[in-house]
Amino acid sequence: MVTLTRLDSAQPDFQARLARLLQFDDAADAAIEQTVAAILHDVKKRGDAAVLEYTERFDRLPAASLASLEINAAQLQAALEHLPADTRQALEAAAERVRRYHEKQTLASWTYTEDDGTVLGQKITPLDRVGLYVPGGKAAYPSSVLMNAIPAKVAGVGELIMVVPTPGGDQNQLVLAAAAIAGVDRVFTIGGAQAVAALAYGTATVPQVDKIVGPGNAYVAAAKRRVFGTVGIDMIAGPSEILVIADGNTPPEWVAMDLFSQAEHDEMAQSILLSPDAAYLDAVAAAIDKLIDEMPRSEVIRTSLTNRGALIKTRDLDDAVAISNTIAPEHLELSVTDPDALLPGLRHAGAIFMGKHTCEALGDYCAGPNHVLPTSRTARFSSPLGVYDFQKRSSLINVSQAGAQTLGQIAATLAYGEGLQAHARSAEYRLVHK
Amino acid sequence: MVTLTRLDSAQPDFQARLARLLQFDDAADAAIEQTVAAILHDVKKRGDAAVLEYTERFDRLPAASLASLEINAAQLQAALEHLPADTRQALEAAAERVRRYHEKQTLASWTYTEDDGTVLGQKITPLDRVGLYVPGGKAAYPSSVLMNAIPAKVAGVGELIMVVPTPGGDQNQLVLAAAAIAGVDRVFTIGGAQAVAALAYGTATVPQVDKIVGPGNAYVAAAKRRVFGTVGIDMIAGPSEILVIADGNTPPEWVAMDLFSQAEHDEMAQSILLSPDAAYLDAVAAAIDKLIDEMPRSEVIRTSLTNRGALIKTRDLDDAVAISNTIAPEHLELSVTDPDALLPGLRHAGAIFMGKHTCEALGDYCAGPNHVLPTSRTARFSSPLGVYDFQKRSSLINVSQAGAQTLGQIAATLAYGEGLQAHARSAEYRLVHK
Repeated sequence: MVTLTRLDSAQPDFQARLARLLQFDDAADAAIEQTVAAILHDVKKRGDAAVLEYTERFDRLPAASLASLEINAAQLQAALEHLPADTRQALEAAAERVRRYHEKQTLASWTYTEDDGTVLGQKITPLDRVGLYVPGGKAAYPSSVLMNAIPAKVAGVGELIMVVPTPGGDQNQLVLAAAAIAGVDRVFTIGGAQAVAALAYGTATVPQVDKIVGPGNAYVAAAKRRVFGTVGIDMIAGPSEILVIADGNTPPEWVAMDLFSQAEHDEMAQSILLSPDAAYLDAVAAAIDKLIDEMPRSEVIRTSLTNRGALIKTRDLDDAVAISNTIAPEHLELSVTDPDALLPGLRHAGAIFMGKHTCEALGDYCAGPNHVLPTSRTARFSSPLGVYDFQKRSSLINVSQAGAQTLGQIAATLAYGEGLQAHARSAEYRLVHK
Repeated sequence: MVTLTRLDSAQPDFQARLARLLQFDDAADAAIEQTVAAILHDVKKRGDAAVLEYTERFDRLPAASLASLEINAAQLQAALEHLPADTRQALEAAAERVRRYHEKQTLASWTYTEDDGTVLGQKITPLDRVGLYVPGGKAAYPSSVLMNAIPAKVAGVGELIMVVPTPGGDQNQLVLAAAAIAGVDRVFTIGGAQAVAALAYGTATVPQVDKIVGPGNAYVAAAKRRVFGTVGIDMIAGPSEILVIADGNTPPEWVAMDLFSQAEHDEMAQSILLSPDAAYLDAVAAAIDKLIDEMPRSEVIRTSLTNRGALIKTRDLDDAVAISNTIAPEHLELSVTDPDALLPGLRHAGAIFMGKHTCEALGDYCAGPNHVLPTSRTARFSSPLGVYDFQKRSSLINVSQAGAQTLGQIAATLAYGEGLQAHARSAEYRLVHK
């Protein structure tokens, strides 16, 4: 039996209970911070030699040179060719769908010309070089390689460099095959803070990148935070979350399994169900109890659901939408008959899975949209990983001589008001004095 | 006389010299970090009372309540109405042009339907509530209020809350007038790390925001870094920079003054001129010497140009473009006869000012594009502040029953491959078994 937290939005202290449920401790660990700072400093100073030493120490992988830790294109291709046919087909189909969706996100440059001939605009340029961190060990997911690499390639990034630790030299062939499919340009089997440092600062062997994306453990996250500014980074992800809003018309087993699919990630993952139908909540609770023992990862699921899961009775579906906006979930399933009716009221969610056929797992792997999504309420202000994360904008300003007469007056007036006389004089030089 | 660094891209050690020129020390100050951490913790715990105490201590501004530090709409309107007519007209004209440009940046939601009825898309939602930090004292620029507030309002942000310290109770009427023009919703006269904390965590009086933007001193920057994740933040700006590429056809005084306009900001600002014409570099150096003593901020300009400025002889204009791509400048002036010819080769710049009539000052105040731009080479991976910083995306996935048959097979295959059985089962429930 799994004992889940049960809440009711009609309870007078519901908001306080909800806040407690959502809370988790993401305090920085001082020991990790210190270790990471030392590794970054060392790699910045000693380059390849430092990376090799840390790789031998942390990954039990001695190597004569960093170059010998590079996996070449032929090896990636071989990994792809040795996959079972159905796995290869599934990966390729997923990649194709992800590519097609992300192509719609491409930004385009634009300009417009004003009456006096002044041209204003915005020029879009892809990033030159991007680093992709891929975790080793049990959390090495080929789907993550696709989801991080494909938007970068669609954006037109010049060179995509993947790093993936291979503890003991143990390579994950699925991950390498995914890299081949996604068009990753170079792969180094290094990991941890030392790999982040190599990408951020560059070494003799690893080229410096402009941005680092991809998930990692606490050391990787701390390293990414620290190199931010020297390079760009994606969001630092917290535990994964799902929120399901159900009207009671989806089979309870389906929703139970959807909650499991989040909970099986790790003990800190959060699965919450909202429904105005109390009997339906009971039915899902019963389905959870019925199904849990069949799951190979039942212990992780049980811990996650017990500590962080919840079944919440709402007044109605609008109430559920309001609660969802407070939670700002990473994944939001609208397991209801008319999901379009709820859409206008929803303000914050990483991805919205609409209708009972759209379980989160379809989006995790192959629907097309990205599975790298804002966690821990950051959907209030951030977006899924996308092509736009690998392109940047430059403003274009081409003021005509006529335009400079109007704009120069305005700029000079404001510059004198701010006490910036060189700004004012610079604008005034462009005025045609008669 | 101003002694500027002179470099020549033909020198064998040019890249090393350039790297030294661009270097600056942005190391975090441990004392500031500690002070800021304590203030954030205190405001999170004690709310209004803590903010009031710090405001009295740091801004010499005692107040009975935080509510009494709010400036109401009537006061903002009064500040606007008391402006000199030409200043008001200039501010309003600038605001109108900034608004018009930024309206082109608005993102739109989209969806597409696949053959099997599956709908995929992206929903755009503005942020609910944004905090705008405005520095007090000498660096209080009304143009900054416009540049930060207008994109937020164009994006559709629900509530825009400005904080501005008023040391000794001294209010900057230009800043308040700009807030009125830009449509800022609420203004509190608080500043420093305590104001950032109030916005990030919320207090009884100051509502919690979803993102904090705007420039500030080292304490404000450290506070923004620390609250990142709880709220979104814009980039942490380094010293301002200008790079001018000149073909020798712009009057040397104009370019000298453009370099001054950057240098007058502060001693750490960086002004660099690239030209293939050695005689022209000499002419600009002479103009600098001729003009420097006329400038009210000549001491700041002199220090900035001497320590961080440079005149660089390049092989040709293409060489200048390549060097510019290495520098990835915040502001790039193409003071050349045919700026369009250089545009395709330029990869990294915050804003590009094209042609001799387009001095940076026009863009700083009123051309239309934003003056909040990526500094310190971050134009390699980031963009000007824009409407897109105040809107976010949610992925939309509505898989039809037919679509679930195809996608469910792919997802299940990949999920089993990753050892995530609940993901696989969740997808398989949607398969119609015959």
